[in-house]
Parts: sequence; C-alpha cells; structure tokens
Amino acid sequence: MGEFDLIARYFTRPVRPGGGVALGVGDDCALLAPAPGMQLAVSCDMLVEGRHFFADVDPAHLGHKALAVNLSDLAACGARPLAFTLALALPRVDELWLQAFAGGLLRLADEHGCALVGGDTTAGPLNICITVFGEVPAGQALLRSGARAGDDIWVSGTLGDARLALEALQGRVQVPAGMLAAARARLETPTPRVALGLQLRGIATSALDVSDGLLGDLGHILRASGVGAEIDVDEVSKLIAASALSTGDRGHFDTELLRQCTLAGGDDYELAFTAPPARREAVARAAAAAATPVARIGRIRAEPGLRLVDAQGRALAGRYASFDHFAG
Amino acid sequence: MGEFDLIARYFTRPVRPGGGVALGVGDDCALLAPAPGMQLAVSCDMLVEGRHFFADVDPAHLGHKALAVNLSDLAACGARPLAFTLALALPRVDELWLQAFAGGLLRLADEHGCALVGGDTTAGPLNICITVFGEVPAGQALLRSGARAGDDIWVSGTLGDARLALEALQGRVQVPAGMLAAARARLETPTPRVALGLQLRGIATSALDVSDGLLGDLGHILRASGVGAEIDVDEVSKLIAASALSTGDRGHFDTELLRQCTLAGGDDYELAFTAPPARREAVARAAAAAATPVARIGRIRAEPGLRLVDAQGRALAGRYASFDHFAG
Repeated sequence: MGEFDLIARYFTRPVRPGGGVALGVGDDCALLAPAPGMQLAVSCDMLVEGRHFFADVDPAHLGHKALAVNLSDLAACGARPLAFTLALALPRVDELWLQAFAGGLLRLADEHGCALVGGDTTAGPLNICITVFGEVPAGQALLRSGARAGDDIWVSGTLGDARLALEALQGRVQVPAGMLAAARARLETPTPRVALGLQLRGIATSALDVSDGLLGDLGHILRASGVGAEIDVDEVSKLIAASALSTGDRGHFDTELLRQCTLAGGDDYELAFTAPPARREAVARAAAAAATPVARIGRIRAEPGLRLVDAQGRALAGRYASFDHFAG
Repeated sequence: MGEFDLIARYFTRPVRPGGGVALGVGDDCALLAPAPGMQLAVSCDMLVEGRHFFADVDPAHLGHKALAVNLSDLAACGARPLAFTLALALPRVDELWLQAFAGGLLRLADEHGCALVGGDTTAGPLNICITVFGEVPAGQALLRSGARAGDDIWVSGTLGDARLALEALQGRVQVPAGMLAAARARLETPTPRVALGLQLRGIATSALDVSDGLLGDLGHILRASGVGAEIDVDEVSKLIAASALSTGDRGHFDTELLRQCTLAGGDDYELAFTAPPARREAVARAAAAAATPVARIGRIRAEPGLRLVDAQGRALAGRYASFDHFAG
C-alpha cells in the first residue's frame, strides 16, 4: 500500500464549504481563508513514542491526545479552531492501528469543527506532528504578557491526575484500579479547554495552557508580564481529581506527592489565567458558560519571583521542578 | 540545557513588524495577519533520517532542505512565503549540529522573508517537521486541477540529478567526483522555485512541485484535471544537469539510467506546470523574470493516461515508477 493510498484512506475527508477553509487535502497546499478582521493563531506540537506516550497506548487515545494538546494551545489564546495539518512517521503500515488512530483524532476534530487540511506520511520511528490553526479577532488573543500586580490567578479543571497516572503506570506509586482508570483518562484523553478560552476573551489579562507543570508554566506568564506571584499550595493540591476518589483523608497519598503532581505534574492541558479581582463574577460566568470549573489559586505581585504559601499563609521552601522533555 | 533554552538559543529571532506576522515565537500560539483579500496557503513536510537524508549529512544542508521542500509547495501554488513553524525531535543536544542546522535553515528563510514563528523541540529519533505559510490572492492559487487538453506541459530547471547523486552515494552508479558534487548539491540543497511560482500566477493552468518523480507527480495533475498527457522522454532526459558535465556522449550513463533519473528520480523540487500554447511567450517572460529556465516536455491530451514517446514520436513501453516513501 503506497503513501498516497494510505493518506487517502484514513485521513482525507471532504471539507465543508465555508468555515475558513477554501481548499483541503489533495493539492500542494491547503488554502485557508480567515474571515475579515481575524488573525490566524498557529501552534505546533510533536509527540514521540516513549517520551510523550507509551508504545502500547490505545491508538484511538493517541489520536485524541495528539490533537488535544494542540487545541489546548488555541484555547490558551482564545482562538476558535479552524483546521490542522498532520505529519505522521510510522514504523510500518498497520491498518488496524491507523483506523483507530484516525478515529480518535477525527472524532475530536469534529467536536471542534477543526478540518484536517493537509499533511505528510512517511516511514520512520513513530512520530506525530500536528500544526493547528484557529481564528481570533485582531487584538483579542489572550497572551502571556498581560498579567498585572493584584490580578487573581486562576486555573481550570483538575491538576495532577495525569502525572499520578504516569507515576502509577511506571510503578512508583500504588493507586487503586478505579482511581487509576480515571487518572489515566486524564493522561491519555485530555479535554482541551477551547470553550473556556473563547469565553475568557476580554476578561483574562493573560493565559496559557498548563502542559509542563503549573509552576513552570506560570513562570512563563511571570517573565512575559514582568511580575511575580503568590500561590496557595493547599488550594492547588485540592485540584487533583484522584483525591476525591480516595478515602476522604486522601488515602495513602502523602502531601508531598499531591503537591508534586498538582504543582509540577505536567500533561494537564488546563488553562492558567489571570484577571483583576473586580472581574471575579465575569470569570464565574465565563466558566459557567463553558461548563468548565475554575479555581482561584493565588495572585500576581509586583515583586518578581514565585512565592509558595500554605493555607495559613506560611511560605514553603520546596522546589517543584517542571517536566522538561530534555531534563525529564 | 533545557528545552526552552535550546529553542531560545537557536531559533528565536525578533519578528519584523508587518509582513503578515503579528506575533512570533514565545506564546502559546503565533498570530498571522494575512493582508485583506489574501488566502493563506499551508503545507507540511516531515523529514526522517535514513529515509529523506543520510545520518552524516551536513546539518546546514539539512536545515536548508527541510525548509526548501516546504517552500517548494508554496511555489507550486504561486504563494509568497510568510512564515513557518519547526518541530524537531533530536536524539541528543549537540550544539554544533544545532548551530549549523539553524544556520542553513534561517539563511534560506531570510532569502525568502519567511519568519520562524513557532514550533516544538523534543528528545527522540531525529525528525524534522516544518509547516509553512504563504499568501496568495483569493482565487489565484495555482492548483493541480486546471490542466486542459491541448495545454503544453512545462518543467523548470533540471531533473534527475538528485537521484543520480543518491544512486552514486549508495554505490549503485559510478560518477566522477566533480559531477557527484554538483549532483549532490541538488540532492541536499535544492532551490525552491518561489519566484517562478509567483510569476506563473494567471499564466499556468495547473502546477505542482516535482518531489516524488516527474511521472508520478504529473499523474496527480492528470487525475485532478481529468485529462491525459503525452511526454517527450528524450526532451526530459536532456534536463539532467550531470549529462552536460559528462563527455558529450553522456559518458558512461546509459539511456535507461538517464530516463529513470529524470522521469522518476524524485527529490527534484522543480515545478511542473501546464499552460495553453497561446501563452508560450508569457511563460518565457515569466521564466526570464524569475531567472529560472523552463522546458516544454509534452502536452495535455483529452484521452486519459500517460503516453511516453521518444524524439521520433515512437511510444515507449517502459514503466518508470515514482519514489514512494513506503514502497521505495
């Protein structure tokens, strides 16, 4: 089976007219036609076996995740998904694998009206590279650079479950089976917070998606905005979903593990964002409209640096290093 | 050295204001702002070691080629390069390698005013995935579907040298050192025909870039346009540059090797295009304005199929399979 047949069979679908896509798969280029006044938000992520996923991962989950991590970047900018390209290196042509992978990928794409408009397929060690395109009105994109002293710091959804699943799957932590299944779903099929990102336009002063661990990613906002922050570590620890499934006293998870997973776990694909305290009701309305829970976990300070405090306001000294694809 | 430092050191450069790029590297997304009335042409290519390049290739050449093959797709659509994203999986952080790779890549990017606006870096088997963006006035993109019976078939530059170099480097053909150097330059540092693609807007009825071999790629035009073609194989054989460096009688290259390389060699990154015979002078002016030679190699026919003839008009039976990244 040749390269072109392979692409055609699993990944070519008719592009609906309109919707910002003038020409889809099948020519040298796809043609995007953003609406007047719109800018095109572009992001790109590459997933490698053994680094971003296990060799035995369900290919449908992998297809979902490969697109989800890219949609998460659009969400962080407040952009509406439009289209994506897929480049795929495969060690062999395995039709069952491809069918499942394409199924997981295209199901999520359909949920977000995001058309597959082009790409490339080659033989090689398994590698998935997606570039995603979204529309955002000129000047309205959420950036990392807008946080101001006094702003609240918010985070969506849950934190740390993906890392807990990773720790358990690699045998470093014991987790009950039901809890592991739920945590593993967060690791393998994260939910990009696209609806929340769209609702936060005009409300959030800065935003990014939490992919490498909360503290490390927050650091990008602090550097880009020239500010510091204080984070309530106990508030953040509550955001792990797995603890709610535990025995009420958080079972056998110690405080340190919870902090490590929620503060620096990685693979969360939640939005962290800032907004002035005067906009708390607006944030709550945005979260409700997006059907996405949000929690307030700290505030931006004029003094540089990241200060970690517990519920009693006591400073913590612990270091919570973020996941780094070369250091990790 | 962490992932972010690595990206920052070699690939982050200030984006000049205007030029269609509103925000470059450093946020969750880049922001492109195509001029009013413009569509955005998008293409994506993935290069894998051992499949698209040798492990010992000069990294500066590799950087050049990784972008060149993408710019070639923009050229085929008549789009002006605007920006690109780079995703890179590296087995290790080798600063000398990165410096050379970035040098070759960014030099070509600068020649075409094409800004690096984002990307991803990860550990993994060497893999280079570039997605490129260009601007083209709405409705003016050169497509594969516009060829009409009676149109001339043209091709730019030279054909077959890259394949000749590949055959020689893999020990299947003996080639004099000087000739190999020239042919290898075509393999490793192809010239994307961007200027020609821009000049051919409004003249060519169809176009594509020759990346997998002339005949196989022409097949895409024929299928997309619902037509057939007759190709003068002897005209095509003349387009190999290496033969001109030979001894006049084409040295030791036999006719079959020349045909194989020029008709089905792959890695040429020339433009194949069609235009009505009435536009021959316009094509010549476009080629002169782009300082790119073009040659007329056949014509489009209403009857389906690809008919190969020699200089005397005799039909040839030989099959010239194109390079396929799974069959090859």
